[in-house]
Amino acid sequence: MDDQIDDWSRLKHALRKQAGYDNVKANLSFIRNLGQVLRESNWNVNVVGDLNQSDGQLELISIKKNSIEAKTNVYGLSIDIGTTTVSVWLVDLRTGEVVSQAVEYNQQIKRGEDVISRIIYASKTEENTEELAELVIGTINELIERVCVRSKVDSDNIFKVIISGNTTMMHLLLKIPAKSIRLTPFIPAINQPPKLKASDIQLDINPQAIIDCLPGVASYVGADITAGVYSSGLYKSEKTTLFIDVGTNGEIALGSKDWLITCACSAGPAFEGAGVQYGMRATEGAIEEVWINPSDFYPELGVIGKTKPIGICGSGLISIIAEMFMTGLLDKSGSIKLDANSDRVREGDHGAEYVLAWANETKNGEDLYITNVDIGNLIRAKAAIYAGFTVLADNVGFPLEMVDEIHIGGSFGKYINVEKAIQIGLMPDMDYENFKFLGNTSVRGSYYSLIDMKVRSEIDKIASKMTYIELSADNSFFEAFTSALFLPHTDLSKFPSVKQIGINQE
Amino acid sequence: MDDQIDDWSRLKHALRKQAGYDNVKANLSFIRNLGQVLRESNWNVNVVGDLNQSDGQLELISIKKNSIEAKTNVYGLSIDIGTTTVSVWLVDLRTGEVVSQAVEYNQQIKRGEDVISRIIYASKTEENTEELAELVIGTINELIERVCVRSKVDSDNIFKVIISGNTTMMHLLLKIPAKSIRLTPFIPAINQPPKLKASDIQLDINPQAIIDCLPGVASYVGADITAGVYSSGLYKSEKTTLFIDVGTNGEIALGSKDWLITCACSAGPAFEGAGVQYGMRATEGAIEEVWINPSDFYPELGVIGKTKPIGICGSGLISIIAEMFMTGLLDKSGSIKLDANSDRVREGDHGAEYVLAWANETKNGEDLYITNVDIGNLIRAKAAIYAGFTVLADNVGFPLEMVDEIHIGGSFGKYINVEKAIQIGLMPDMDYENFKFLGNTSVRGSYYSLIDMKVRSEIDKIASKMTYIELSADNSFFEAFTSALFLPHTDLSKFPSVKQIGINQE
Repeated sequence: MDDQIDDWSRLKHALRKQAGYDNVKANLSFIRNLGQVLRESNWNVNVVGDLNQSDGQLELISIKKNSIEAKTNVYGLSIDIGTTTVSVWLVDLRTGEVVSQAVEYNQQIKRGEDVISRIIYASKTEENTEELAELVIGTINELIERVCVRSKVDSDNIFKVIISGNTTMMHLLLKIPAKSIRLTPFIPAINQPPKLKASDIQLDINPQAIIDCLPGVASYVGADITAGVYSSGLYKSEKTTLFIDVGTNGEIALGSKDWLITCACSAGPAFEGAGVQYGMRATEGAIEEVWINPSDFYPELGVIGKTKPIGICGSGLISIIAEMFMTGLLDKSGSIKLDANSDRVREGDHGAEYVLAWANETKNGEDLYITNVDIGNLIRAKAAIYAGFTVLADNVGFPLEMVDEIHIGGSFGKYINVEKAIQIGLMPDMDYENFKFLGNTSVRGSYYSLIDMKVRSEIDKIASKMTYIELSADNSFFEAFTSALFLPHTDLSKFPSVKQIGINQE
Repeated sequence: MDDQIDDWSRLKHALRKQAGYDNVKANLSFIRNLGQVLRESNWNVNVVGDLNQSDGQLELISIKKNSIEAKTNVYGLSIDIGTTTVSVWLVDLRTGEVVSQAVEYNQQIKRGEDVISRIIYASKTEENTEELAELVIGTINELIERVCVRSKVDSDNIFKVIISGNTTMMHLLLKIPAKSIRLTPFIPAINQPPKLKASDIQLDINPQAIIDCLPGVASYVGADITAGVYSSGLYKSEKTTLFIDVGTNGEIALGSKDWLITCACSAGPAFEGAGVQYGMRATEGAIEEVWINPSDFYPELGVIGKTKPIGICGSGLISIIAEMFMTGLLDKSGSIKLDANSDRVREGDHGAEYVLAWANETKNGEDLYITNVDIGNLIRAKAAIYAGFTVLADNVGFPLEMVDEIHIGGSFGKYINVEKAIQIGLMPDMDYENFKFLGNTSVRGSYYSLIDMKVRSEIDKIASKMTYIELSADNSFFEAFTSALFLPHTDLSKFPSVKQIGINQE
């Protein structure tokens, strides 16, 4: 009776006195719940809040009767939305432990393999925009259910989510029109989306959970890259490092603790198997490695799952071109030499082709081969990436050969054989020990910022520090691209380690 | 091509450069709309934002192609949610002009006349809570339609709303459980609700419009009183002023520029006609004024609409008791003197009664009278209010007779005849010129804070400065109440101007 303070002010007072938070807010849902929980718990409660890294404001998310369960069951998610796959990590926010991980194809794939086709689809009608958002949210919710079931975690105890992903994925997730990303001058609506509540995007977790999307830099250098640059550590390194996420767009960053420059190469999805007759993803039946005998051009195949082959995945494609080139089956321009002494080289419907497996050796009972057209697509993709390296280095006047380390992010990167990637001129010719394969740097960056507010601020700083070069507006790009349309490159002095060994060596 | 900044950062940059706002935020709906509006307008846009008075953050609400229409059609609403009536003012935010006003009964009335019965109703089930919120929101939306149609304003151009009202009305509007307001120790969930969007409470205006509820002080001293204290100006006056909102709860504030003290008297709704056999609201057919001839006790009636009477409204009740007392029909304790020489005084089913109009003179064809029970209820109500004055004054050691001015707020206040209010001891015995009738000070306070951010801050300061006295916890209240259960008061020295003139004068 003597203390007529309202419930909300009483809670704020306790948070100030007991925990030192003097800037606290809550939304209506929290306030609606407040009075009952305070009284049922006899004024002994446990609250979960999110501290905003920029202004120190504590946003309250949940209030429960104080108990061991309420204190210990505090979870978060770090999510990477890739064009192809979505990764979800379930994290115990008290210990920082990753209690469960799950990966699944992004269900949006059924509406387009790459970001461009998805933007086109989404831009057609509002229903399409809705559908693409629902598809990716559906994917995420499936993954959330999977990690929660596996770890016996109640999804209502998930209070915070950090999302990383490329700029298009962010726009499509949030139903922000993505049309302008595709059209010149390629401007996204937003690089740093506002913070949201889980209920805003129908994530199946605590509806009041905070959703924080990491910042991107440009239409084709998204939060996956800022998170990747954080994860790789290059932004604080004395060494000059080239960071590359080999994927559809081939995003590249170059820099050190003093400077950061970035671009996207629009390499296209050739290394993900698109535009390649027998291209496929790295699943069972995919050729992932090839060794060609230089004397008879017989190919020995490494197949995922050790089954009969169905097609060729990215690392297999790099391997095939490298082997064909090194054994002399390909000339410098990437044309299959029809005069090679092998029945595996033949003229097909799409020009010259090289048979990797005969019909009786394959799963679908037809010859499995690679064509000149396929190889042309792959060489254009690798040329775009290498040209990206060149333009970034030229822009800052830093010689590419002086780069100390190359960090390769993205799940695809893990399977690249560096030797072969250098042989085709996809990667700069450097000592193998200077290459580091970092796996999914995007989800790891979102994980670090989930468990440490300072990391979240650091990623903001990285995003604002990165100088973005739009290659289509850069005059030197086309020249660098043209020079790289050869195996390994027009300028062989850039690839001193690459020496053809095949019988048709020129 | 050379300027790869994202749409949102470009807009923020323009707001910083052109208008000096460096702390700007927007929600997802705004961002979704951004790219299209920027391009369709050829980057010439008009934005509407709300500047937060506490941290200077500009929250963007709307973006349109720049035009005279976009620039000029910027409206706001100031709303007062009373237990009985809801007032809505439509305001041109560029000029500050009130372009239209409308008042209507709060539709919640059908679920209870006073706040207590509504809290009981709301607390029964979640459906009831929903229903009460829908009823008041329905009332507000009807009023919004009315003011918009009348002024030819598109309701989508309403971008900001300030809401005032008592604490229970705020809780019921926002579906915040109000149960604890009714139960000892009478604690509300929240005195200052968080800012909302119109879509959060289904107001039929721009869904992104900001809804800002004014702060209250306690369960029974709500935002209507803080707004009222602002409107009355007493918080900045050298004079010591008593502010009273005569309504169900009889909220009182006493103070000056140096101090403020407040309480609610739980006077009950007797002066609104409840608990009085022929009590009614101040509509057509209500007796609003009575003059009783002291020689034959013949009552001359002032009836709203000049029709046959149906019942008696608040000002009529004050008038009747004053006249009956002054003419000697009532003794000091408020008992009707059955020995008075008039056939209008008689014994009825509920004890003694005084007939104001015979059956053939009334609309419903039955005698219209006031009973001893009615008068008892009214005297308890006026005693509660006067006891409130006494306790506040005693609490600060400030003699009530030293008060410089009395400000009467609330629409009911407008019709009070001061002379008669003093005669029954409802108001302190002061010179009439020191009384000011301010009308609906609540809606006016919300109007001032709508058009001036500094006023909004001032009301926050008033709320935090007001010392609240919970009368049920104050030992002196019961004594003061008992002393005031007489006409005009036990201590006649407090009412030197009141002299009975009737023939039965003692």
